[in-house]
Amino acid sequence: MSDLEIRPATVDDVPAIIAMLADDPLGAQRESPDHLEPYLTAFARLAGDPHQHLVVATRAERVVGTLQLTIVPGLSRRGATRSIIEGVRIHADERGSGLGTRLIEWAVEESRRLECVLVQLTSDATRVDAHRFYERLGFEASHVGFKRAL
Amino acid sequence: MSDLEIRPATVDDVPAIIAMLADDPLGAQRESPDHLEPYLTAFARLAGDPHQHLVVATRAERVVGTLQLTIVPGLSRRGATRSIIEGVRIHADERGSGLGTRLIEWAVEESRRLECVLVQLTSDATRVDAHRFYERLGFEASHVGFKRAL
Repeated sequence: MSDLEIRPATVDDVPAIIAMLADDPLGAQRESPDHLEPYLTAFARLAGDPHQHLVVATRAERVVGTLQLTIVPGLSRRGATRSIIEGVRIHADERGSGLGTRLIEWAVEESRRLECVLVQLTSDATRVDAHRFYERLGFEASHVGFKRAL
Repeated sequence: MSDLEIRPATVDDVPAIIAMLADDPLGAQRESPDHLEPYLTAFARLAGDPHQHLVVATRAERVVGTLQLTIVPGLSRRGATRSIIEGVRIHADERGSGLGTRLIEWAVEESRRLECVLVQLTSDATRVDAHRFYERLGFEASHVGFKRAL
């Protein structure tokens, strides 16, 4: 297989990212890939926030993975900055290829570079395979993740 | 009791916030309230990021609670912006007074005002009382929270 590149997402990557978000048991109900406008508005918000890092993984210039990293300063843990990983998706053709590991390790290295002392994420309780994946990568399932729709 | 006010934290509030962060079974091991400098550096980072909202609750000008709200744009869920609550602490004298509910409801209202469609948080698996508290406030324990120290 050709080399993998991980780089900041551009507006031209948005359709490919949305297609991956929608190609997922939970995402299929939540996304509307045929109606791009709200995604483009959201992309502009992400691009305007220097603490947001939306990246894509490409192989032979085709988008095959994505992840969003948010840098969150804070007072707790002696003024620790932490990072939060959201929106991890791997193209169906690439699952099992090790790309998920590459993307998460990219996020870990980028978090270290930005002086974070902790990286965290939440995963839907139904995604049991994802939980094993994160535990293999050194994440500890130490917390309960709560959400409230507004 | 005198009226409660919820307002943005100032640098003068930092010692009172740290005292609350440290007065906690988990925080006691993680914080160093006698060594303020890293907290002041972190406060400056928070103050410089328009997507961070560190607030204090005061009663008769005394700091009795704190919470950090982070606004996170994103592509998933049709370009949804979400908010994340971190660092919720209530002064020992005020526990059971309804202040926790007031602070969380403030965060919910502020999230709505900033056009978030989802508010989320993680709580250490050992904080069983906190979990019941969040469920009473309409939060769903739908996710597993993973952390990896760097």
